[in-house]
Amino acid sequence: MYRGILATIVVIGSLLVTASFAYIVNPGPVVNATVGGVWPRPKYLRSTDNYFLIDPKNFSILPVENTCDILDKAITRYIKIIQSTVHSPIYYPHVVHNGSGTNVTPAQILSSLKVNLTSPCEQKPHLKMDEWYFLSTSGTIISHSIWGVLRALETFSQLVTPYENQMLRVTETHIRDEPRFPHRGLLVDTSRHYISKDILFRILDGMAYNKLNVFHWHIVDDHSFPYVSKKFPELSAKGAFRPEMIYTQKDVADVIEYARIRGIRVIPEFDVPGHTRSWGVSHPEVLTQCEGSYQGLMGPMNPIKDVTYQFIDELFREVQEVFPDQYIHVGGDEVGFECWNSSTEIVDYMKKNNISSFSFLQKNFMEKVTRSVTALDNIPIVWQEAMVENVDMPPGTIVQVWTGDWRVLLFMFTKAGHRALMSECWYLDHLENGGDWKKYYNCEPLDFIGSEEQKKLILGGEACMWAEVVSDRNILQRIFPRSSAAAERLWSPQHTRNFVEAQQRLEEHVCRMNLRGIPAQPANGPGIC
Amino acid sequence: MYRGILATIVVIGSLLVTASFAYIVNPGPVVNATVGGVWPRPKYLRSTDNYFLIDPKNFSILPVENTCDILDKAITRYIKIIQSTVHSPIYYPHVVHNGSGTNVTPAQILSSLKVNLTSPCEQKPHLKMDEWYFLSTSGTIISHSIWGVLRALETFSQLVTPYENQMLRVTETHIRDEPRFPHRGLLVDTSRHYISKDILFRILDGMAYNKLNVFHWHIVDDHSFPYVSKKFPELSAKGAFRPEMIYTQKDVADVIEYARIRGIRVIPEFDVPGHTRSWGVSHPEVLTQCEGSYQGLMGPMNPIKDVTYQFIDELFREVQEVFPDQYIHVGGDEVGFECWNSSTEIVDYMKKNNISSFSFLQKNFMEKVTRSVTALDNIPIVWQEAMVENVDMPPGTIVQVWTGDWRVLLFMFTKAGHRALMSECWYLDHLENGGDWKKYYNCEPLDFIGSEEQKKLILGGEACMWAEVVSDRNILQRIFPRSSAAAERLWSPQHTRNFVEAQQRLEEHVCRMNLRGIPAQPANGPGIC
Repeated sequence: MYRGILATIVVIGSLLVTASFAYIVNPGPVVNATVGGVWPRPKYLRSTDNYFLIDPKNFSILPVENTCDILDKAITRYIKIIQSTVHSPIYYPHVVHNGSGTNVTPAQILSSLKVNLTSPCEQKPHLKMDEWYFLSTSGTIISHSIWGVLRALETFSQLVTPYENQMLRVTETHIRDEPRFPHRGLLVDTSRHYISKDILFRILDGMAYNKLNVFHWHIVDDHSFPYVSKKFPELSAKGAFRPEMIYTQKDVADVIEYARIRGIRVIPEFDVPGHTRSWGVSHPEVLTQCEGSYQGLMGPMNPIKDVTYQFIDELFREVQEVFPDQYIHVGGDEVGFECWNSSTEIVDYMKKNNISSFSFLQKNFMEKVTRSVTALDNIPIVWQEAMVENVDMPPGTIVQVWTGDWRVLLFMFTKAGHRALMSECWYLDHLENGGDWKKYYNCEPLDFIGSEEQKKLILGGEACMWAEVVSDRNILQRIFPRSSAAAERLWSPQHTRNFVEAQQRLEEHVCRMNLRGIPAQPANGPGIC
Repeated sequence: MYRGILATIVVIGSLLVTASFAYIVNPGPVVNATVGGVWPRPKYLRSTDNYFLIDPKNFSILPVENTCDILDKAITRYIKIIQSTVHSPIYYPHVVHNGSGTNVTPAQILSSLKVNLTSPCEQKPHLKMDEWYFLSTSGTIISHSIWGVLRALETFSQLVTPYENQMLRVTETHIRDEPRFPHRGLLVDTSRHYISKDILFRILDGMAYNKLNVFHWHIVDDHSFPYVSKKFPELSAKGAFRPEMIYTQKDVADVIEYARIRGIRVIPEFDVPGHTRSWGVSHPEVLTQCEGSYQGLMGPMNPIKDVTYQFIDELFREVQEVFPDQYIHVGGDEVGFECWNSSTEIVDYMKKNNISSFSFLQKNFMEKVTRSVTALDNIPIVWQEAMVENVDMPPGTIVQVWTGDWRVLLFMFTKAGHRALMSECWYLDHLENGGDWKKYYNCEPLDFIGSEEQKKLILGGEACMWAEVVSDRNILQRIFPRSSAAAERLWSPQHTRNFVEAQQRLEEHVCRMNLRGIPAQPANGPGIC
């Protein structure tokens, strides 16, 4: 029952399930899965009919030039992942290895993969990191950067599939690969529900399996303030949901390190001036005290008091020390003007200073905040509202588009010379029946009218996991494989749009993530994983 | 972001989170949770300002009259559950126990709960089982049936909340309770994805926590045949997804036993004549061989061949031995007529026998099948399509309504004297943004035009978890707490419709299920569980 949506995506026949599986009119069988399909799809891939066998107990990954802690740890991880592949339910029908095809040569044993890293390791991932790599499954990785090596190892691990007798198989394949966009992110909201550190680690694992490289940590919001500040410990002491629902400085450092060694940047968001109710539990002085019919309530931050800016400045100085990435997200979305409008002092201030609208009041606020960020050599990211009235933000500011007509917004922001991120298509809290990754997959961030120069300002995008109705119990299932669709759109060449082919690779990729401990939900309908 | 849907359900103020939690204009804080609220809401409940304290290490549940294995095992389970309650995040603000209220007497220690079961235990749950109970938290349960005792223990465990110093607290409460409908079910589809036995056990746990009492096991379907038949082992040997994705006879017996001791019936469904592709892998002779443009394909069961009916009859004889419940679901839904229409022999047969439509052909099919069920003293349940052309089915047949205008259908079926089950409102595979339990909660099965006699024929209903896009990874999260909404509708008095009150109880109930190992997803938006 309820199979209307499936009717359009069913692929006929399923070698993997059983060769004799009957095929009838209504409904179709399960979706085929690829065997050793790579997600996201590499830029250039060529396979032959040859293949290699791997004895997982006698297989090594060897740095032949530069190495470092990041590479050493990656080798340990991927050896383990490759070994676990013997348990995968996705494998070639064993008839293939008999050499019946004319182009098939006897399989050779692949005993090691050599990693040629041509430059010393960088210490931390960054916007301009080089993720290019060359991979030959005959045993070679070449990359000019540790980050490319990480992506290559992920790709290699995905090409490996089970064979007979606890052996593994990898088709002879040559890959040259690099991402289309440098910023491929996932936003995780840890305020509306507290997400434990262990689950954050598993989210980062899943990101690495999808070559996502930015963890946008929407760490605080109205509902709770779990970040334990060194300067202002009262923020979490009073503003967290519960005493144990916090991220200590060690927790934050652990998350950043876990991400770093996987080539994932961590960009924190401290959203101002709205979405700050939890700040007001310990620091009511920085919020607006509403009047009139809102008497007794607190609204967005008070934009006319110096104490507000001093507080933000001090907190952001700490944040910029704690989070090593050059970028910091300062929010600026969804500021409700009712409370500002009720405040006598704010309305008087606006009259006195000839500020004609609350939007302009907000513009002034965001200008001051972004200036205090840039003064520290950091670069701000803001939500679109912060820039709608204010396209003359500090140069370098990145704007993130999340609602409304994204084509118009991307045109407008890039026309003004700003760099931009797409999120409008990729709100993971928007649910639909069935496997709803197709709409994410179809969204193309460059599909707006604009010059080549404008398109170059699109840095990529982010899938957003707002946490109204996700907790530790279901957040991994909601994120994967739905964010995988955005991950391929952001990594693979623009022409990668064959939905049926992608569907079959994603079917395998879900099985793969499951095998690796990520409880990704089914992508396509009935299936064996 | 994306909080439109939440705006309507936010409750102001949150004592449980922190008494000083600020309350601002936009958006509201988290939903309040009740403390010791019972889900589903009992028929009659009266509380006082008094309360008892429980030392979980020195608390016992004592049968004072009849007992049996079901009761002994329940006592073991509920002692463990009650002990684990000390870890619950939901508790009264501790100020209450100081006796400042005028009606509060000093708390007494409750050291035991006495179970007065006035009749010997029945061995297995059934449609007419008596679930009535009386419960006083001063230490008494009275019930005339073991099934009522199970429900009473569940209720008692929900009333217990944490106190200081690893002690527990229970408000003085008197409850008389019984369900509104005798059939409160959950359908689980184990064909479109294989659901492991361990997850089935946890589903049954969750059902017990919601007083659901029928596990409708949609065990086979087009996609796989995981049931290992004693008579026809080839059905699963060839028709299961994978060799290990099966339910052996022992597995089935384990599930039935796990359900039995929780007062849950297990009703198997072997859906015919459609939804049977997986049968055809080993027994193509019972399916229709399509012709014309469908040449080479197999359609629904062949309704004009004796071998079909003989096979069904033999299999159903086994099923009725294996599953002790008197009811068996024989399907009858979504039969596609294209293949029948393409078959020369079927079209010829219809002409020869003056059968004017495929609906009538299906009617004849279902008549034969239901007769073979009733011949063995079992009673069939069918999906609505089986009865649309055929309201003169064998007396006693229950019809399950799942699509279309359920008010018209319930009127029609009950007018013809048939008993009916509601499922149309409770399709758990239909997703919506946010916490979407409200629509389930609002659905009232008796809300159709019909006489009192007709309404009495509504036995209850079932939430349905079709498994197109759920697997072991996300099925528990999808089922709970969304099926909890249906569970309360089916258990509690019809006037139980205060959404805000229910919302607060459900908020606690989700926390409770989480604590008990059921990864229920958030019900209402931001929250602390």
